[in-house]
Order: sequence, then C-alpha cells, then structure tokens
Amino acid sequence: MEKTVEILNRHKTPPAFNAAAFSGDGDKWVTEIDRDMAVSYRIKKRIFSKKSKFQDIEVFESQSHGRILTLDDIVMLTEREEFTYHEMLTHVPLSAHPCPENVLVIGGGDGGIVREVLKHDCVKQVDFVEIDKDVVDASRVHLKKMWYDENDKRVSAYYEDGVEYVKKKENFYDTAIIDCTDPSQISEGLFSRDFYLSLKRALKKNAVFATQSQSPFYDAEFIKKLHAGLRDIFVYVRLYLAHVPFYPGGCWSFTCVSDTFEPSVVRKVKYGRLGTLYYNEYLHKSAFVLPEFVNKIVSG
Amino acid sequence: MEKTVEILNRHKTPPAFNAAAFSGDGDKWVTEIDRDMAVSYRIKKRIFSKKSKFQDIEVFESQSHGRILTLDDIVMLTEREEFTYHEMLTHVPLSAHPCPENVLVIGGGDGGIVREVLKHDCVKQVDFVEIDKDVVDASRVHLKKMWYDENDKRVSAYYEDGVEYVKKKENFYDTAIIDCTDPSQISEGLFSRDFYLSLKRALKKNAVFATQSQSPFYDAEFIKKLHAGLRDIFVYVRLYLAHVPFYPGGCWSFTCVSDTFEPSVVRKVKYGRLGTLYYNEYLHKSAFVLPEFVNKIVSG
Repeated sequence: MEKTVEILNRHKTPPAFNAAAFSGDGDKWVTEIDRDMAVSYRIKKRIFSKKSKFQDIEVFESQSHGRILTLDDIVMLTEREEFTYHEMLTHVPLSAHPCPENVLVIGGGDGGIVREVLKHDCVKQVDFVEIDKDVVDASRVHLKKMWYDENDKRVSAYYEDGVEYVKKKENFYDTAIIDCTDPSQISEGLFSRDFYLSLKRALKKNAVFATQSQSPFYDAEFIKKLHAGLRDIFVYVRLYLAHVPFYPGGCWSFTCVSDTFEPSVVRKVKYGRLGTLYYNEYLHKSAFVLPEFVNKIVSG
Repeated sequence: MEKTVEILNRHKTPPAFNAAAFSGDGDKWVTEIDRDMAVSYRIKKRIFSKKSKFQDIEVFESQSHGRILTLDDIVMLTEREEFTYHEMLTHVPLSAHPCPENVLVIGGGDGGIVREVLKHDCVKQVDFVEIDKDVVDASRVHLKKMWYDENDKRVSAYYEDGVEYVKKKENFYDTAIIDCTDPSQISEGLFSRDFYLSLKRALKKNAVFATQSQSPFYDAEFIKKLHAGLRDIFVYVRLYLAHVPFYPGGCWSFTCVSDTFEPSVVRKVKYGRLGTLYYNEYLHKSAFVLPEFVNKIVSG
C-alpha cells in the first residue's frame, strides 16, 4: 500500500533546517525539519514568497491554524497559536517591572511583540529594531492579525542590526525584548557577550529584559551556556517556560533578566485589562517553576 | 527543485488518524497525522509490528528519540521524553492523596505508569488492567526502559476491559490512573458517565484519581464536556498541564478528581526519593495554574 508524494519546496540541503511542502491524498503540507523531528501543517496555498537580503520569507494559508510565517524554512508562527509566544515573551518582563516607559524590541518583524507591548498604558516609547525590512513589509500586508496599530505614535521602527543599534544608546530603556530566530548567522550576535554588555549600557539600572531561549528538551547545552554568560553580567537570570505548539516539541523557554527585580515577581498587575488569552498574573509566577530536568540545566 | 519521496506505511485512510514513514534524502520518518498537523521522527528501523485484536501495534528505533511506540499509527511515546507524561499522570494523583495503598491502573500497557506507581513506598497493591495483552507483550520485550520490575509482588495484571473490571470492585482503591488512548472505539468507554459512576463505587470515599484528557489547544470541546460530566459526579475536578513533546502541539492536559482532597495540594512530599526528571512538589501546584484560554474551557 505505497503512495508517492512530492516535496514541493525544499530550499536547502543538507537537512538540518529545511522545510518541505508535501502532498498526500491530494493534500499539501508545510514541514519544518528540526534535526531528527518535524512539525507539519496542512496548507491551502502559499501566499507570499521572497528571498530577502537575509533569508527566505514565506507566508502560507493553512487549513486550520491560520496563516503561517516561515523564515529559512523554519516556522516562526501560526496565527492560531501565536498568542502564547508573544504574550509570554512580552508581558513577563513588562509586568516584572513596576513601570516600563521606554521599551526596546529587537527582532519580531512580524509585529506580534510590539502589538503586545502597546497594550501597556504606561509605555511611552517603543523602539522597534528589525534587521530585515522585508519581514516587516510581508507581515504588515499578509499577517494583519499580528500587526500593531501603526497610528500609535509611540512606535518608531528602525531597520538595522540590533547588535549595532544598542551601542548607540545609554541608560535609556526600562525594558527590552529580544525576539530573534534560532541561533544562526543572522541572530547569533543577539546571544553574544558583547551584545549583552552593550544592552546593559543601553538599559536603565533597574531595567528588566527578556529573550527567547530555545527548547529545554533539545537545546540544553545552549541554555546552559547562555545562562552562565548572563550570570556573569546580570544579577537575576531566570528561565521560564510556555506552551508554544508551533515550535518543535511545543515547550519553549524564555530568559528574563534584571539587576534589580526578581523576574518571577509581578510588580504591575494589569493583566485583566491586557485582554490576554494566555498570560495572567498567576501564570507569570508559575511559568518560572521548572521541571526537574530543566532545574538541572540552569543550576549552573 | 522537486524531490520524490515514498510513504512506506499508511494503515488507514481517510487521514484523520494515520501515520506514514516517509523517506527523503535517504532518511526514513514516522509521521503521525492528527487532523491538520503532523509530528514526525527520523527513524533507523521498524523493530516490531503486529495487528492485535484491537489495534495496529508498532515499535520503531528512532535516530535520537529512543524507541517509539505507535498504536493505530498514533505515537504513544518516545523513550527520550516519555518521563514527562508518565510522571505527571502518576505522581500528581498519588501525591494529592496522603497515603495511597491500593492503586488501580487502567490502560498504560507500555508499563510506564506502573513503573512510576511502584516508586511510592506506601503503595501495597497495584491492579494493572490493560485490554490489549499484545501491547504488554510488545512493551515488555521491546520497550525495556518503560517496563516495571516484574519481581515486584505488589502488581497484578489483568487483560480485560477496564470498563467491565471496575464494576467488580467496591470501596477498594485509594487512587486510580486512567492512561488510555485518544477517544476512539477502544477507549471511549473510559470517558463515559457509566464508567465514572462505576469507578466512584470502586474507589474509597477519600480517593483521588487522574485521567489523561487530551490537548487544550485542539480538544477544547472534549475537555469542556468531560469536566461538565465529572462535576456532576465528583466534588473536585481539576485540569492540569504538562509539556509532552510527542503529542501534537506538545501541551497535554490531565484531569485529577476527588470527593475529599483538592488535587492541586501536595499531601505526601516524597518527590526527592522518587528520582523524577519532571515532577516535583512545586511543579505539582503550578501545573494547575492555567493559561487564560484554558481557564475559559474549564470554567463550566
């Protein structure tokens, strides 16, 4: 009972990070292959495809997960489930700070982080730094659910490398959020010691920042090194977890950092007005309660 | 740049629940298709395959997730990550009870739940009821990592339908664990009102039991009905979540129930001696803290 299917798109080989849309029984699929596992979605059609200066950008209309954004064949988000990732990467650092006014967002060209940041009334200025303007242009048009209100005058967008951008600022931001891709040629600078030293200068003394920090199931060594490096520079370095169904394994980690505030403590209870689907005050605290194997990863 | 791959095994069509091993670039994969998404693993070889009276049973050796058990083309477990599911389904109900002595396990033919139950010294008797002896036989031989110590005289195995088994018991068990497959012809009885009424009679008055209860992302209506039905019969009905990377979306729910004890409270702190990789006392409590959209599902 063998069937033949076709891989319709596969940008890169060897296969460490490549995607395929395959069809079977008349269906089309988008597949992200991450090492020895893969996550796939049944799709209706491809809506957008562009090779930017930095990466392959594609948007698909899926059968039941809304639109899907891929960068270099890696699924960045599904519209149906993106709220988990964007809420947890945004509202944890913003709620761990008593009153974040100046917020820096690095990466997140799909707009989801800025959309969440703007829900906080105390925020006065959002500097949105994305290296790839083509991601922003594609998202603005094809991922309207993700996009923030561009009439909101608090946002300034800068299309440049976040690593260079932070060098120009000093003692300015209350909060920073780093929403970058898996460590790769584009994003590895955003996990480097030099970047964190620059970021520390760009932040105010009592700032809180957060970065996505990969999967505790599949990137334990990465997390261990990241935390060791951050603990050299900052006082509080805390891992927290959320359910992110569109990333391999569905368990994603974030790291929240501060020299002043313990990140697991909520200092600004506004979640009722944030209209969240995932985040709440109680979940903020419990997201820092880690499974035993994850405690071992971050125990230093 | 098209490539042709082959689906090597596909037991059933239409595709609601079917699996495919496909090869690309010389690789073989096992894929579980669950509605409009799929999870796949790169495999070395198939180790075991049998069509039992109830279902298709297969065991694969994967590239980096250990061995994988599938029933009717649905991934039941990967050896690498199975600890999350088995620990959380077992240690939550057993730790919410102050002293569980008689324990009933329904389903879980792979042995993982019994293995975890036996870690509790207070347990005196484990009745292990699995409808499909072929799953037990396959797991005993091919999933040794999962299997419990058969020299442990506390365990009695019964190869029969759990729905019928519980009718024969009265006021006997302190704890029950229902480790069944997705609702299907085989398992739907284990989610029925009649079964829960029989189970209530089989349990002591202060018992605590738990069942797997599907994904809050993809089975919201199922969970809503399950909880409404359970609340008709029992006092405390509580949903909790864990990261289970081998189930679609990686976020799995469990439901813990009692007429006497609030399930989120730990009454027996033994986790240090349990040697767990996932469960601990703090996680027990925080697993019951739910994302906003999940609170809405179970709010009745």
